Amino acid sequence: MDEFEFIDRIRTQAHRPADSQITIGIGDDAAALKWKPERETIVATDMLMEGVHFDFDIATQVQAGRKALAVNLSDLAAMAAIPRYALVSLAFSAHKESRLAEEVMQGMFDLAKQFDVAIIGGDTNSWNGPCVLSVTVIGEASARGVVTRAGAQVGDAIYVTGDLGGSLSGKHLTFLPRVREALLLHQHLEITSMIDLSDGLASDLRHITHASEVGAIIQQAAIPLSKAVTQLTDGHSSFEHAIGDGEDFELLFTAPEEAVSKLPEQLLSTTTLTKIGEVVAERSLHYQDDRGNILPLPETGWRHRL
Amino acid sequence: MDEFEFIDRIRTQAHRPADSQITIGIGDDAAALKWKPERETIVATDMLMEGVHFDFDIATQVQAGRKALAVNLSDLAAMAAIPRYALVSLAFSAHKESRLAEEVMQGMFDLAKQFDVAIIGGDTNSWNGPCVLSVTVIGEASARGVVTRAGAQVGDAIYVTGDLGGSLSGKHLTFLPRVREALLLHQHLEITSMIDLSDGLASDLRHITHASEVGAIIQQAAIPLSKAVTQLTDGHSSFEHAIGDGEDFELLFTAPEEAVSKLPEQLLSTTTLTKIGEVVAERSLHYQDDRGNILPLPETGWRHRL
Repeated sequence: MDEFEFIDRIRTQAHRPADSQITIGIGDDAAALKWKPERETIVATDMLMEGVHFDFDIATQVQAGRKALAVNLSDLAAMAAIPRYALVSLAFSAHKESRLAEEVMQGMFDLAKQFDVAIIGGDTNSWNGPCVLSVTVIGEASARGVVTRAGAQVGDAIYVTGDLGGSLSGKHLTFLPRVREALLLHQHLEITSMIDLSDGLASDLRHITHASEVGAIIQQAAIPLSKAVTQLTDGHSSFEHAIGDGEDFELLFTAPEEAVSKLPEQLLSTTTLTKIGEVVAERSLHYQDDRGNILPLPETGWRHRL
Repeated sequence: MDEFEFIDRIRTQAHRPADSQITIGIGDDAAALKWKPERETIVATDMLMEGVHFDFDIATQVQAGRKALAVNLSDLAAMAAIPRYALVSLAFSAHKESRLAEEVMQGMFDLAKQFDVAIIGGDTNSWNGPCVLSVTVIGEASARGVVTRAGAQVGDAIYVTGDLGGSLSGKHLTFLPRVREALLLHQHLEITSMIDLSDGLASDLRHITHASEVGAIIQQAAIPLSKAVTQLTDGHSSFEHAIGDGEDFELLFTAPEEAVSKLPEQLLSTTTLTKIGEVVAERSLHYQDDRGNILPLPETGWRHRL
């Protein structure tokens, strides 16, 4: 199969939302949209590389493709935005005998359909290197507007969805981006700041406090630990994993506690919501351990060196 | 330098158009735009890989970055669209001692400024692999609407801008995307179909005739040969290079010859415009050689194998 046959195949298989506003889809030099958003347009891009973000001895090809779209949807969730369109740039090894390109796209198509996202364009390449999947997503702010990292107020409570840590045991390939949860929460609540947990709680919380010009204190005992993290036996504590491991792809947000306490019961049927700490004025990050000691939060979390 | 310092640096250096409509730029989970386009939104994405689209023993780092944006602007030019925004996903080798990331971004910033494009977001990664640069561009249709590959009419003349062939000798790193030329032509002329020459004339002409459900005949003697191609001594004729070499990044378009003959003189001050053939009803591609023989156009041109 060459790239043009592949593009023809993608064109016929790609999910098409009913009200897609797509005037030119896959197959020309660019896509065209009759895009008349009432609210802000939200765009994000994220690239996954074989050997860094997935390994084909663990991940299936479908999972790798799914993850490439999922991490992008997670970025839109962090803004409480509604995903609408995606563009996909791919580099595949020319020497693979497998149906790599098709399987990767199948993973994207499945998730795109689930979130009613139209894949409207892309670029397909082959080379001798590892697989690289780059996705750009275009969405729309919800009626309440976007949520950024800046805006956390002193006195706000800090919340996370789901359980943290140990994502590399499997969740990083199968997680459901918290798009619907973010929209539901934002609809019922003024979220003051939000981010998705991609680099690890300690690092991502720092992004929020840095942007919001505040500090934070979290409670060790309150951190919801994943089942995976409690099963790790690598010498690091579950707490270390929960604050340091990347790719949880849960939501981390701040809001007044009183407002959160008034949320309808079982608003989030798909996941849990846990208060893990508070926003404080002093611009540093601390945690209170199980014995009541207040300690600096370690500067853990993944960052790419350049 | 780590990725967060790098992102901070990009944020301060990125070109900001005066009427950018950017409400959230680089540095959050996604960018936000107050985007109220009167006309269609046009989006394209293209990925460049080290060793395939550029080599650092020939290309400077600035040139590689410039090219990654330029090929995307060329896609918008092919639709006669006005570029507005770009997002950039990057993978750099962690072991490079150089200022690779900064230099690559400098190349993008320079070209972005030249075309008044705002770089509004991105994703920066490091790994052990080669350099990968993926760019997504967002633009707007011009007042006359978009031009696609479909629409060539039997009897239309076929035109190219500039000279063809031998781009790998240097032009593929330094070409100016034909954004302004496409807009000028489309403003003065109903262009019936257009593509940018990325895979090679024979291949890209086939994209137009396939999408338009027509055929074409081109004149060997009419093909404008680049100086680079006349200097190649690899056993292939200049004509073979001119129709087979990729990455000319010139415009190939169809229009009624009468309308083109009425264009203001020197409309294109930056390049030439050459009639190279005609659209015909029979759905195949031919060329007339220097001795008047009509022969099938070879199926040359680059295509990635998957």
